[in-house]
Amino acid sequence: MERYDVAIIGTGPAGVSAAITSTIRNKKVLLLGSRDLTEKLQKAHRIQNYPGFPDMPGAELAAAFQRHLAQLGIEITEKRINAVYAMGDYFALQSGDEMIEASSVILATGVVQGKPLPGEEALLGRGVSYCATCDAPLYRGKRVAVIGYSPREEAEAAFLAEVCAEVLYFPTYKDETHLPASVRVIREKVTGIEKAGEEVAVKTAENAYPVDGSFVLREAVAPGQLVPGLETEGSHVAVNRAMEASIPGVFACGDIVGTPYQYVKAAGEGNVAALSAVKYLDSLKKEQ
Amino acid sequence: MERYDVAIIGTGPAGVSAAITSTIRNKKVLLLGSRDLTEKLQKAHRIQNYPGFPDMPGAELAAAFQRHLAQLGIEITEKRINAVYAMGDYFALQSGDEMIEASSVILATGVVQGKPLPGEEALLGRGVSYCATCDAPLYRGKRVAVIGYSPREEAEAAFLAEVCAEVLYFPTYKDETHLPASVRVIREKVTGIEKAGEEVAVKTAENAYPVDGSFVLREAVAPGQLVPGLETEGSHVAVNRAMEASIPGVFACGDIVGTPYQYVKAAGEGNVAALSAVKYLDSLKKEQ
Repeated sequence: MERYDVAIIGTGPAGVSAAITSTIRNKKVLLLGSRDLTEKLQKAHRIQNYPGFPDMPGAELAAAFQRHLAQLGIEITEKRINAVYAMGDYFALQSGDEMIEASSVILATGVVQGKPLPGEEALLGRGVSYCATCDAPLYRGKRVAVIGYSPREEAEAAFLAEVCAEVLYFPTYKDETHLPASVRVIREKVTGIEKAGEEVAVKTAENAYPVDGSFVLREAVAPGQLVPGLETEGSHVAVNRAMEASIPGVFACGDIVGTPYQYVKAAGEGNVAALSAVKYLDSLKKEQ
Repeated sequence: MERYDVAIIGTGPAGVSAAITSTIRNKKVLLLGSRDLTEKLQKAHRIQNYPGFPDMPGAELAAAFQRHLAQLGIEITEKRINAVYAMGDYFALQSGDEMIEASSVILATGVVQGKPLPGEEALLGRGVSYCATCDAPLYRGKRVAVIGYSPREEAEAAFLAEVCAEVLYFPTYKDETHLPASVRVIREKVTGIEKAGEEVAVKTAENAYPVDGSFVLREAVAPGQLVPGLETEGSHVAVNRAMEASIPGVFACGDIVGTPYQYVKAAGEGNVAALSAVKYLDSLKKEQ
């Protein structure tokens, strides 16, 4: 199997910066995320303090980043990574039923906004899942709920609709949804998930919806979830000033490592994470 | 006396970024440095990894920074700061014989490239000075040497020529010098400074030049020198991830806090330093 030098998860300013610097340092880079980069950047009205771009609409800064990636021949792979496992001298990144190998990993997935839903963590793996691609087969012919935190999650719900008997979709955003007719869109505020006999129930302010399984789909996954065993500080990955996380070969940058949540701070940290990954890769070579 | 909220020393990417974010946060900012920003940036051939600006000549990135400052109405004050003294609830910045007051200070002066000259540190204050404006009066009518690390230092040598009987100028760079005819330019590699009776002697590979005093003028001053009592790590200021230095109210960012010496890393840290300074200023208000 092809093994990348650096797998970078996330295409915000941190991930983009890490990919640029890793590529310039001649590493074989896999940049995982969205070709649109991030919702947050695309929707930012005007960014005042990314030095060099005064009073910049977020979408234009995103376009500048995209041009920079294109100029260096860096492609974005639109795969969602569900988990990263430390295998000794490399990492296995699980994307649905596919495994990707990389010698080092840079986490740049942003921060999970807000707290988990009541019941979400307690029922994880017992009626709550974060990965439609992984767990859809468990619910073949059954009834599931999807709580979608961004329009990007609609593709997951559409996929579930091909497999499951019924899909309820609870968008937490206001945008119009674009879903197959078979998906039932419910615009009620989800207040929690609870056990209901053999099933779980998605509770809203108005109702309770019993389902066989539920999927909570956010743009960012909690880091401790993504990389089992990784040291965290609340919802952030613990790093030092070289952006090294607690597992050798794992680096993190951007909002995932803590406040302030700022574009240029994220870009700066992406650069540092990439150079630390390069140093780590060099040390692996010396050991051989 | 007018007191600034934030005095930012240095106009590289770190200082520029700190000034932009502090200004956006409505602080009264004094940005001290050069209207050309920095020699290093201006002379950078092409910068590959400042995200958003692919394959960018340093001078063009500098121009983009200058436009950003202008758009926010941020001016650059071309004063050299010789020392920063912690006065309790504010800082006194010494510039020649002028004192400037600020409630917080962000150090972004870059890193001192290379080691001190042999004898330089031992003779500091006893024949070696870093500040022509401060110490010129000591050498009225006498003979001095200036070791200039960049063309910017020529203005200091020209000033000394107005006061001293004789000025020897040792440029460490290759550019043509633009100095008054009375200044004697000596293009020999300086190897050290040593005590010579009541005088000091500037030694070169070829000769020794006895003088009454010598001035070693570099773009950046060692941080422990600039802020007496500041905790340093080698030639760098010790900071935490919030860019807080060991003295409350002092922040640092960019090359001065350590490797990697990268433009976007510096810009990111400038942003963080500014937001930490804002938080510090808010805490001062609460105490009142």
